[in-house]
Amino acid sequence: MNNDIYLDNSATTPVSEEVIEAMLPYWQVEYGNASSLHSFGRRAHIAMEESRARLAASLSASEREIIFTASASEANNLAIKGLAFSGINKYHIITSQIEHPSVGKVCQWLEKQGFTVTYLPVDQEGMVDPDELAATITDDTLLVTIMYGNNEIGTVQPISQIAEICREQGVIFHTDAVQAYGKIPLALENVDMLSATAHKLHGPKGVGMLYLRRGIKLSPLIHGGGHERGLRSGTENIAGIVGFAKAVEIAFAEMEVLRDRLEGFREQLIETITAIPKTKLNGQRKGSLPHITNISFMAIEGESLVMKLDEHGIATSTGSACSSPNLEPSHVLLAIGTPIVMAHGSLRISTGRRTTQEEIDRFLTILPQVVEELREISPFKINT
Amino acid sequence: MNNDIYLDNSATTPVSEEVIEAMLPYWQVEYGNASSLHSFGRRAHIAMEESRARLAASLSASEREIIFTASASEANNLAIKGLAFSGINKYHIITSQIEHPSVGKVCQWLEKQGFTVTYLPVDQEGMVDPDELAATITDDTLLVTIMYGNNEIGTVQPISQIAEICREQGVIFHTDAVQAYGKIPLALENVDMLSATAHKLHGPKGVGMLYLRRGIKLSPLIHGGGHERGLRSGTENIAGIVGFAKAVEIAFAEMEVLRDRLEGFREQLIETITAIPKTKLNGQRKGSLPHITNISFMAIEGESLVMKLDEHGIATSTGSACSSPNLEPSHVLLAIGTPIVMAHGSLRISTGRRTTQEEIDRFLTILPQVVEELREISPFKINT
Repeated sequence: MNNDIYLDNSATTPVSEEVIEAMLPYWQVEYGNASSLHSFGRRAHIAMEESRARLAASLSASEREIIFTASASEANNLAIKGLAFSGINKYHIITSQIEHPSVGKVCQWLEKQGFTVTYLPVDQEGMVDPDELAATITDDTLLVTIMYGNNEIGTVQPISQIAEICREQGVIFHTDAVQAYGKIPLALENVDMLSATAHKLHGPKGVGMLYLRRGIKLSPLIHGGGHERGLRSGTENIAGIVGFAKAVEIAFAEMEVLRDRLEGFREQLIETITAIPKTKLNGQRKGSLPHITNISFMAIEGESLVMKLDEHGIATSTGSACSSPNLEPSHVLLAIGTPIVMAHGSLRISTGRRTTQEEIDRFLTILPQVVEELREISPFKINT
Repeated sequence: MNNDIYLDNSATTPVSEEVIEAMLPYWQVEYGNASSLHSFGRRAHIAMEESRARLAASLSASEREIIFTASASEANNLAIKGLAFSGINKYHIITSQIEHPSVGKVCQWLEKQGFTVTYLPVDQEGMVDPDELAATITDDTLLVTIMYGNNEIGTVQPISQIAEICREQGVIFHTDAVQAYGKIPLALENVDMLSATAHKLHGPKGVGMLYLRRGIKLSPLIHGGGHERGLRSGTENIAGIVGFAKAVEIAFAEMEVLRDRLEGFREQLIETITAIPKTKLNGQRKGSLPHITNISFMAIEGESLVMKLDEHGIATSTGSACSSPNLEPSHVLLAIGTPIVMAHGSLRISTGRRTTQEEIDRFLTILPQVVEELREISPFKINT
C-alpha cells in the first residue's frame, strides 16, 4: 500500500487525520440526536451549528443559507428539482453540455416532466460563452445551472460574469462547485445556489451541502421530521458534518500554498506528457483547476492505460468515477470537440493534499513506458 | 459524562467501538471511490458489496435487493414517492395514523399531487386491524405502508398478516422497520420494501437502506451517476456502509440475549413507574419492541420531565426526536386515544446495548422524586 501513488483526487480523497480526530467524539461520546431536548442532543446541535457557521463563513454567507445533504449529487438534485417544483410559473432551464450527471441527468429528467432545457455548447477549452448564455435567457427562464470547475478536464467557467448576467435578468443561478470549492477562491457575489461535498476535500464521504441564498424557496426532495428548516429531513450526520467543517477549515487555510504546489505539478505533468508524441491536453492551458490534468493519447484505450498504471500501483482515471463502468466516450471530451478516437484515449490525473514531488516524478517515469507498451500492442497503428 | 445515563436509544445510539474500528480503514487507507477502475476503487467496491451481502443475509434477501441511502427518511421517501412516480396507473395509498413523519408527511405531500391516502386508525395499544386494512383495499390501491414497530410507544404491528393480505390482493407492501430491524426477529415473507438505518443500531448516522424486492420498479429521488443500479446516485459512503454492516452483524448475533435483557428492563420500568399514581403505560403491555417504554404522567409536561431528568444527567424524550422542537401533542398518543392532558405528559424511555442494570435502578430512584417535585409546582392539581 505505502508505495502506491494516488492520482485520482477528483474522484475522492483520503480523509485527513485531523478530520478523523474531529469526527471521533461524535460517535463515541457526543452521539446525541441534534433534535433531542437533553444535553446530549443540545451538544450535538451546537457542534452542527458551529460547523454550519464555519461553512457559511467560507462562502461569506449566513448560517441560515447552508443546507446539509448527504452528497453533492443530492444538493444538485435539491437545487434544481427543488426550484423546478417550488411553484414558480417558469419552465425553461439553461445548463451546459459538460455538467456532472447529477446536473445533466436531472435536466434530462425535467424535460420528461415538461420543462425545456438549453444545453449550452462550450469552446475547445470547455468554456461557456457568457454572451451566448445571455442571448438564450427568455421570460420563461427559471434557472441557469453551470458548474464552477469541470470534474474531468478542470476548466473553470467565467462564473462571475455568468452570475451577473443572471442577476441582471432576474434568473436564479446555481453552480455545482464540487471540484472548485476549497481549491480556488470563488467569486460568489451573484450566485444564488452552490453545491459542494466533503469527500473531494479530504473530508468524509456521505456529507454535502447546498448554499441557498436567503429568500429562495425550494420544494424538498426528502419529507419527514422537518430537519434543515424543512428542506431536508433525516437525522443529521453530526460526525460527518463536523468532519466536513474541519476539512474546509484546513482547505481554506492551505489554499494558496496548496494551489501553488498543485499548479507546479500540473505544469510539470503537461510539459512532460505532451512531449510524448500524439498526445493532446484537454481543457485549459492556464486558469484551470490546479488539481486536474486531462490528456488524450492517440491509439490507446483510456481504460487500458488506467489498468496498466494500476499494475504499477498508480491510481488514475479516464474521466469521472461516476461513469467509469460506462465505456461510452466522455460527454465532456466530445463537447470540446475531441475526436472519438482521442476521447477514448483520455487519462485524468488529479492531485491532492497528500501528493508529493517524488510521486509525480515516479509517475512521469512510468507513464511513457506504459504508453509505449500499449501502443506497441494497439490495433491502431500510428506514425510516431 | 461518565455518570450520565442515556435512555434515548430510540432517537439515536452510541456507535460501538467495533463499528468505529471497522470504519477507520475506509477513511485512511481504503479511501477509494467504489466506481473507480483502479485497485483503490475495486477494494472499496468489494467492501461495499460484502456489506451489502451481510445486510441482505440479515433479511434473507439477495444483494441486488439492498439499496443504500443516507437515512431511513430517504429510504421511506424513495420507497413511497419512487413507487408513486414509477408509472403504475394506481393512485390510492394506505398507511396508518401512527407512522413516522418520513412516511406520514410523504403521504400528505402525495395527496397534494393528486393521490388519495387512507390513514388507518389504531386501537388503544396502537395496533392496526388487518381486517380493516383488507376492507380498505380497492382496485386503485398502489401501496400499503405500515411501520413495523412504533418509534414512540413500541407497538409491533401484525406485519405477517398485513403483508399476506397485500400479497393476496396484489398490492405492494412497504414497512418502515427502523425501530424493529436488528431488535426483534422480522417476518418478511410477503414484505416488498423495508426501510432501516444504522444509527438506531449502534452504527453511524448518515447511512440507511431500502430493501426492494426484485422486480419492483421505482423512480429515483436522486438522479446522477447511476449508483445503486440507477436508483440512488451519489458517491457511496463506504465507511458508513461498512459500519452499518458491522452494527447489523453485532445486532443479529446478540439479538436474543439483548432482547431478553431489554425486556427485563422494560418489565421493571413498567412495574415501578406505573406504581406512581396517575400514570399510564402507552402501547402494548406484551409483545412490544423490547427497548421502548412510553408512560404518561397526569399533570406534568413531558418537556419539563425531560429537562428535569437531564439536570440529573439522564437523557430521555417525550416522543420522537424528530418532532422534539414541536410542542404539539404526539400524533401517536392522540391516535391511541390518550387524552390531551396525558399526551402532554408522556415520557419515552429507550434502552440499548450499553444500558446497565445499575443505570435502570438509578433512574428508577430519581424519577419518582422528579415526578413529585414537578407535580408540586404543577398548576393542574390532582388527587394522588
